[in-house]
Amino acid sequence: MKKAKKNIKAAILIIGNEVLSGRTQDLNVSFITSWLNTNCGISINEVRIIPDVEKTIISNIRDMSKKFKYVFTTGGIGPTHDDITSLSIAKAFKVKYSYNKEAYSILEKYYGKINFNDGRKKMAKMPSGSSLIYNPSSAAPGFKIKNVLCLPGVPSILKSMIGNAKKYLIKGKVVNEKNVSLYTVESNIALELEKIQNKYIKKNVNIGSYPFFRLGKVGVSVVLRSDNNLSLVKCYNDIKNMINVKKIKIFK
Amino acid sequence: MKKAKKNIKAAILIIGNEVLSGRTQDLNVSFITSWLNTNCGISINEVRIIPDVEKTIISNIRDMSKKFKYVFTTGGIGPTHDDITSLSIAKAFKVKYSYNKEAYSILEKYYGKINFNDGRKKMAKMPSGSSLIYNPSSAAPGFKIKNVLCLPGVPSILKSMIGNAKKYLIKGKVVNEKNVSLYTVESNIALELEKIQNKYIKKNVNIGSYPFFRLGKVGVSVVLRSDNNLSLVKCYNDIKNMINVKKIKIFK
Repeated sequence: MKKAKKNIKAAILIIGNEVLSGRTQDLNVSFITSWLNTNCGISINEVRIIPDVEKTIISNIRDMSKKFKYVFTTGGIGPTHDDITSLSIAKAFKVKYSYNKEAYSILEKYYGKINFNDGRKKMAKMPSGSSLIYNPSSAAPGFKIKNVLCLPGVPSILKSMIGNAKKYLIKGKVVNEKNVSLYTVESNIALELEKIQNKYIKKNVNIGSYPFFRLGKVGVSVVLRSDNNLSLVKCYNDIKNMINVKKIKIFK
Repeated sequence: MKKAKKNIKAAILIIGNEVLSGRTQDLNVSFITSWLNTNCGISINEVRIIPDVEKTIISNIRDMSKKFKYVFTTGGIGPTHDDITSLSIAKAFKVKYSYNKEAYSILEKYYGKINFNDGRKKMAKMPSGSSLIYNPSSAAPGFKIKNVLCLPGVPSILKSMIGNAKKYLIKGKVVNEKNVSLYTVESNIALELEKIQNKYIKKNVNIGSYPFFRLGKVGVSVVLRSDNNLSLVKCYNDIKNMINVKKIKIFK
């Protein structure tokens, strides 16, 4: 894994009617985002959820692969008629859609020649020039073509194979986080938070403020994120001082 | 609420670093999508999650408001420095960002003149020409400007006020769903499902196939969706016949 000193911006494209219809709750965004930041120093800057429609997949792949260093897709690489991610990406990049020899061989070995039916064979079809992302749990590999990395939609399978995508990625700067939850309302600290944010904006520290209701109590979580650890700690101390001055209780 | 006979396509724009960083699990997409379909016959055709960055919000609002009949935004309309949705949308549509008299009056009454501080006043600032979406739980209203409807990010507040957005929407055709979960694997039914999908594609029935792991068993959920109820039932019967012929057990 090569190293880059700067921030690397990526995006996730979730392909699937089941997520878009609200039937399936997406669980992959939070996992991929957290994994990429911790292991690769890569930040997700946009997520899109789109239907299983070829022209929509094609236009989003073209648009996002231009805008971001990497695009991670989830879903649509299985054996059924609604799995059209691989074909659509081949069309987006105007390359052939055909059997990947290595993927074919892996799947034939996994299922056995007799049970290697057309549905299963379909999972070996990819855009020409793809490199495989090996799948230790259910054999069918994901793939990388240009700056697009294709993963399955089933969270447990995705989790088992994302480590195998690491070799294709350049490492950037990890973003660290500090947070504190307070017994207060946002409008009581809005002015002070804005002043502190203005002080640290050039040090690349981002302050977020999020109201919550927990155990019948109203509170605010203040979340600090930065790839500059020294400034992150200084900013956190400023916030702690503000909390003391205003005599706000911390939510444990 | 006016009625339209055709499908109405909308999109959701989630604005918030906390969702993009994986810190907060989005729960609004599945609620909004299901509510819009059931109550308004409106389908969500794309979801985007973007950071609290002004130029990103502006470009997405311009792009999505052109592509879709309605755009629903969530997040970024609170009192703190990172709540920049209203200002950014005003800039996207090149209109003034100023106090909405009605919103100002609602908030002043809710907090009382003495406690109506600058953070709280900020929640009355909106793009000029906005219509309010009333908030029965915490007063601060959402708003509609052109075809963009702005809602808060906190799920319980959003749920309490979405009904007040209904008067701004044209009613389309409701999409109904039927589903069956099977003790099988996708590649065992891929060929048959594709044949049935091809038979009903012109009748606007969409068949999805989703593998799952439940109680230690592997299975497949087959989900049918259509705004044509008669074809939906016929297609469902064809799938039931296929299940009988192939002697596949149904997962109860």
